[in-house]
Amino acid sequence: MSDSRPIGVFDSGLGGLTVARELFRLMPGEKIIYLGDTARCPYGNRSEETIRTFGSEDARFLIDLDVKLLVVACNTVSSVALDFIAANSKDIPVIGVVVPGARAAVRRTAVRKVGVIGTAATIRVGAYTRAIHAFDPAIKVYGTACPLFVPLVEEGLLDHEITRHAVQYYLAEVLDSGVDCIILGCTHYPLLMQAIQEMVGTRTHLLDSAVWTALEVFDILKSLDGFSSEKAGGLAASRFLVTDRTPRFKELSSLFLGSEAPSIEPIALDRLTKPYIVPVAA
Amino acid sequence: MSDSRPIGVFDSGLGGLTVARELFRLMPGEKIIYLGDTARCPYGNRSEETIRTFGSEDARFLIDLDVKLLVVACNTVSSVALDFIAANSKDIPVIGVVVPGARAAVRRTAVRKVGVIGTAATIRVGAYTRAIHAFDPAIKVYGTACPLFVPLVEEGLLDHEITRHAVQYYLAEVLDSGVDCIILGCTHYPLLMQAIQEMVGTRTHLLDSAVWTALEVFDILKSLDGFSSEKAGGLAASRFLVTDRTPRFKELSSLFLGSEAPSIEPIALDRLTKPYIVPVAA
Repeated sequence: MSDSRPIGVFDSGLGGLTVARELFRLMPGEKIIYLGDTARCPYGNRSEETIRTFGSEDARFLIDLDVKLLVVACNTVSSVALDFIAANSKDIPVIGVVVPGARAAVRRTAVRKVGVIGTAATIRVGAYTRAIHAFDPAIKVYGTACPLFVPLVEEGLLDHEITRHAVQYYLAEVLDSGVDCIILGCTHYPLLMQAIQEMVGTRTHLLDSAVWTALEVFDILKSLDGFSSEKAGGLAASRFLVTDRTPRFKELSSLFLGSEAPSIEPIALDRLTKPYIVPVAA
Repeated sequence: MSDSRPIGVFDSGLGGLTVARELFRLMPGEKIIYLGDTARCPYGNRSEETIRTFGSEDARFLIDLDVKLLVVACNTVSSVALDFIAANSKDIPVIGVVVPGARAAVRRTAVRKVGVIGTAATIRVGAYTRAIHAFDPAIKVYGTACPLFVPLVEEGLLDHEITRHAVQYYLAEVLDSGVDCIILGCTHYPLLMQAIQEMVGTRTHLLDSAVWTALEVFDILKSLDGFSSEKAGGLAASRFLVTDRTPRFKELSSLFLGSEAPSIEPIALDRLTKPYIVPVAA
């Protein structure tokens, strides 16, 4: 058995391409349909209700394109709305980035203290804390929202004095608490890995959820015998859709994907938001 | 003659409340209906097409509520889509923030060199440059996009080392060009007035478009004999609508308005985006 349908991946913007990159690394024969809601990003400062609405619209759009598995690459949506999306995904497996990242941290921490950094919504709803405690309730979790990190990455200030000051501002307290690993709970943050590592020192391990999420997708497809058997897979056979052709989307998508995206197709936002029309039988 | 209908004011988010504040200062008897599209802000990094779509939806929503005049408090929408909105506003006067700010700078500059700071879209489309040149084509205009300023204000870092570094990063070049005044071309920037003034020195004049926009509204209502004659006007009689009840909207709205907003009403985003339904005659 094999399944040559594509894997669906979505994020509020282009940051989720860091997850797509890890999927291609592990499974170079798979096709991806990526959706970035660049007309309405970022989601991280919005209310839970709005995050749920936008995330569900993104998910439904990809499910309607007949994907075999759905990856919620957005930490904010994974934190706020994963159960809701999974309950409405027909029989498609839905994988978020929170549980894989939490599982990796539980395995990694020796001192049983874990730091989590993410958007305001991700930290506020405490999804990483719940996921870590589901594995081991004795682990202490220290969460900090870092709302400036996304705009710093999007400005390309990966190695700049302003960024180093921001890293110091946000991470001093987490570090004081004695954690030995920190989950990078937002798809933009791996691009700040170097600046953060310099500040926290080499004894603090930084965990990129993208890597662990790709591993989980690999395991699920393996258990379902659902890998693609098509010869033409990978990056060249994949599709990248955005709801707004923002001026810097080419530059940013190459930054996150680590290579040039083959081509990015704009789609009208109302293809996500229009009420679902049930086809009338002839 | 008088006109007791409200003034409509909209912005991508809550920053436009700085314009509402100036309107109340000049015309304490007027009522305002304010709309902040907090579910889809910020607009400043999006494409012109999407800015035009979102701005038109905001405008149509307020016009349908029977406002007597429409203030586009968003610099991004004023820069990209003011003509488009004005052409579709029935007979309602539409005032943006760009022309009033440009007029003030033309009056103010002695060296005929003006700086403009704003969002990526505001600077890219060059609306301030065109507006200044319509008054005096000999004035040199130096524009710089400052995408970190909005998130810095929203983080409340008005007087912080990170902000001072960002001000230095963005403004060094504009200042080197020898301008004697700088237009704060985004509704968030007046809150950074002190940090910016410290960096540029007291000989560089900072112009807040909000003040000059309120003066223009005053002049237009006066010329139309359109002030309200109702006794119950002002802040207490006004309405403040948002498309998302974001977690920090109370705190931020007080910051921008300079006083507590009486109450903020969430409205469903699809009231802006739904296709316009023409009522069918009975």
